[in-house]
Amino acid sequence: MFESAALHHEIPKDEYEREVAQLRTALLHAQMALRDKAPFAVLVLIAGVEGAGKGETVNLLNEWMDPRFIEVSGFALPTDEEAARPPMWRFWRALPPKGRIGIFFGAWHTAPIVERVAGRLGAGAYQRRIDEIVQMERMLHDEGVLLLKYWFHITRKDQRKRLKVLEKDPATAWRVSKMDWKLYRHYDDFFAVTEPFLRVTSTAEAPWLIVPGAEPRYRSLLVGRHLLEALEARLASGAAPPPATPDVPMPPALDKLNILRSLRLDRKLDKPDYARRLETWQGRLATLSRDAKFAKRSVVAVFEGNDAAGKGGAVRRVTAALDARRLKVVPVAAPTEEERAQPYMWRFWRHIPPPGFLTIFDRSWYGRVLVERVEGFCAPPDWQRAYAEINEFEAQLVESRVVLAKFWLAISNAEQLRRFQEREATPFKRHKITPEDWRNREKWDAYEQAVCDMVDRTSTAQAPWTLVEANNKYYARLKVLRTLVESIERAFDA
Amino acid sequence: MFESAALHHEIPKDEYEREVAQLRTALLHAQMALRDKAPFAVLVLIAGVEGAGKGETVNLLNEWMDPRFIEVSGFALPTDEEAARPPMWRFWRALPPKGRIGIFFGAWHTAPIVERVAGRLGAGAYQRRIDEIVQMERMLHDEGVLLLKYWFHITRKDQRKRLKVLEKDPATAWRVSKMDWKLYRHYDDFFAVTEPFLRVTSTAEAPWLIVPGAEPRYRSLLVGRHLLEALEARLASGAAPPPATPDVPMPPALDKLNILRSLRLDRKLDKPDYARRLETWQGRLATLSRDAKFAKRSVVAVFEGNDAAGKGGAVRRVTAALDARRLKVVPVAAPTEEERAQPYMWRFWRHIPPPGFLTIFDRSWYGRVLVERVEGFCAPPDWQRAYAEINEFEAQLVESRVVLAKFWLAISNAEQLRRFQEREATPFKRHKITPEDWRNREKWDAYEQAVCDMVDRTSTAQAPWTLVEANNKYYARLKVLRTLVESIERAFDA
Repeated sequence: MFESAALHHEIPKDEYEREVAQLRTALLHAQMALRDKAPFAVLVLIAGVEGAGKGETVNLLNEWMDPRFIEVSGFALPTDEEAARPPMWRFWRALPPKGRIGIFFGAWHTAPIVERVAGRLGAGAYQRRIDEIVQMERMLHDEGVLLLKYWFHITRKDQRKRLKVLEKDPATAWRVSKMDWKLYRHYDDFFAVTEPFLRVTSTAEAPWLIVPGAEPRYRSLLVGRHLLEALEARLASGAAPPPATPDVPMPPALDKLNILRSLRLDRKLDKPDYARRLETWQGRLATLSRDAKFAKRSVVAVFEGNDAAGKGGAVRRVTAALDARRLKVVPVAAPTEEERAQPYMWRFWRHIPPPGFLTIFDRSWYGRVLVERVEGFCAPPDWQRAYAEINEFEAQLVESRVVLAKFWLAISNAEQLRRFQEREATPFKRHKITPEDWRNREKWDAYEQAVCDMVDRTSTAQAPWTLVEANNKYYARLKVLRTLVESIERAFDA
Repeated sequence: MFESAALHHEIPKDEYEREVAQLRTALLHAQMALRDKAPFAVLVLIAGVEGAGKGETVNLLNEWMDPRFIEVSGFALPTDEEAARPPMWRFWRALPPKGRIGIFFGAWHTAPIVERVAGRLGAGAYQRRIDEIVQMERMLHDEGVLLLKYWFHITRKDQRKRLKVLEKDPATAWRVSKMDWKLYRHYDDFFAVTEPFLRVTSTAEAPWLIVPGAEPRYRSLLVGRHLLEALEARLASGAAPPPATPDVPMPPALDKLNILRSLRLDRKLDKPDYARRLETWQGRLATLSRDAKFAKRSVVAVFEGNDAAGKGGAVRRVTAALDARRLKVVPVAAPTEEERAQPYMWRFWRHIPPPGFLTIFDRSWYGRVLVERVEGFCAPPDWQRAYAEINEFEAQLVESRVVLAKFWLAISNAEQLRRFQEREATPFKRHKITPEDWRNREKWDAYEQAVCDMVDRTSTAQAPWTLVEANNKYYARLKVLRTLVESIERAFDA
């Protein structure tokens, strides 16, 4: 893998300067075209061996292009806000929007590699981190981000030479730290981890390009030209997303039975019984949320359901038991302009709470496989890949000690009709019902199919769906509260 | 001030319940009207004595209204990302957008009061913090935010009684901490600070409402009704901003002399001289930015200037000397949707760097008093109040150890014409010149006046403008570099 990179390439100075002059103009042009039309975002990962010219290359790209539209992120130790979330959160928040070039100097691969070399990460956990990386990069590719990964390589011998040269010159001696020499001594240990790492993370969508780092002119031209070609090719092909994932149809139902139809939607609770139990379960939730253990866990609760199924009422019975200062409700509506310039899941990542907080999503990332699927707001490959992306997202939450509860509030077709009509007849409820609600109702069967597929694909052991029989509001609210309380209790006991 | 709040109000339970039922419906209606039209944001500050029912009231408001459109922020100790910026930064980032109700549980007043009582804040510094608060609240008011400030009060005797009651009940004992008893023992010390604090921060735009906290039903109804009335009144008056600040005209010029015309725009530097000096000053900047002292300071550089004055070129001579990982360039264009839902300065606050970083604004908050003033994009009262808001903003930066440098790149009318024509004649520069540039040129005199006023009003000792004679690009670039280097050096020596 590194054989070519160990060769000593030489490019004469005058040839280099001639080339660079042309390259700069072309890069600048491509960058302006990217900025003006903003058809996609570019993300450049810069990684590799210390002393192989990573920093110089980043600075050079900034000099060759217009630095106003490049966003460079160096990822040193995470801030406390970052450390309080899943490891990928800090990278999500730094993603460049469409029209911009983001450069990540060290990214999601750094921590797993360093921790693995240091022996702080077991084989299983390390494998899981690789998994996260592969899925993240695949998601970026599928979202149309132009992802370019450069791995800078020098041999152990060249690394030693380079550190010596830097140390000798008073103007550059500050750049060599004890850590650099320590890394040098562990060159072979790193090699043993990074070589297979590069292999498994060089996927079809996002391969690593190995950059020989010993000769500055060679490596600069290599990266510059490669970036230019990739940019120009993608700009020429238009804003079209990359080849879609294969369109594997969902298996059609062979009979009328499905998980929604098998629910006993009419489960009931009478009012006095409800009032009594409500107090009990709200009390338990209130006590739990003040438990010392809560300081180390956060809770994410997702509410989805048929129109008029009573999501709002159920949410309020939960929030009433909690301290509003530790609570956030996120009503999911049309994405904002800043959200539209990012991959789909970005708008949800930004609301992930730190430990000690509870976040309720009133509608959620499942919009992609529900309304967007049924109404055709996104292409079939987009909602089809969403199942895997969602499962991955939720796995990362749960692995970061987030308690995740997902509720589907189900009512019958007849009950929905009754509630729609009641709303239209009640003056102060009339604003809750729109022509769109009636139109959605006509697509009852398509929505039903989408919900069943959603549950089949995303109700996992670590993030199960709770289907809530909601023809009777009292019953539904209590089932939500009880399920939430029990999920948190289980997490505290684990 | 607190006399009325010490009275023991009593509201019978049945009367309370009747009232609350009506109040809830009305509040919910007002909240929905706010959400649907989003004409303004609502910010509710909850402050006052411990044990006076602040937390209960916040939770109650969340229960009475739709919690999905309320954002409650409790401000405990700042996170490290917050501690690395001016004290007001954490409040700016938590401001509710238009259409939402934000509740700040403890806000900008908490830290100054606590530190003052603890003797950690001298009289001058304390006074300055009060200043910041008054200006922040005035800005919010002027930006059309409905700001409601509730100060919860109970007597020392009632506080003791309340703590005892909570402590006795096993279900609430956890709510009483050692800190609460400590605060109780310092009741009089706090009183001595808060009483005058409330007086000076009860401005015409943003008065405190004192809420008697001893009787839950009374205080809940008081806050609920007051909030409802304020909301309904503002909704009824339309989205109209509050009364504008008086329109005091700028003094007209009595002759042709002004600071721009007195510049010697033709100051020159020849190319060899430029190349030599460029290297020197870029070297000094590079060395400074790697200095250990830089870890405790950040740099904000603002670039404004005539169209075609060479801002981009000057910016790039600065960035070329710096490590791209510690650098951010913010090109200021039309605000995004999320930015438009916030006060004007919000879009700049979000980019303030932590120590160790340098941020360049390519155009800036001065847009308000330049293009927005001249083109009539905002009402005269808005740009007229901007001078004071900008000075306050910059003062907060400088007081938080930010090195601030502001550059106006000036070219002559004739030189601008020459550059416009040159750009139109050069194929790869043609995209840089638009019909809008020609239109702006026709308003040369109006822009000149705006620039002179800007310098007169915002070139302060702590944040001076540097006027850069820019007919010759070499001279201009070097003056920018030299000024920036010297500003940083002065800050390091201070």
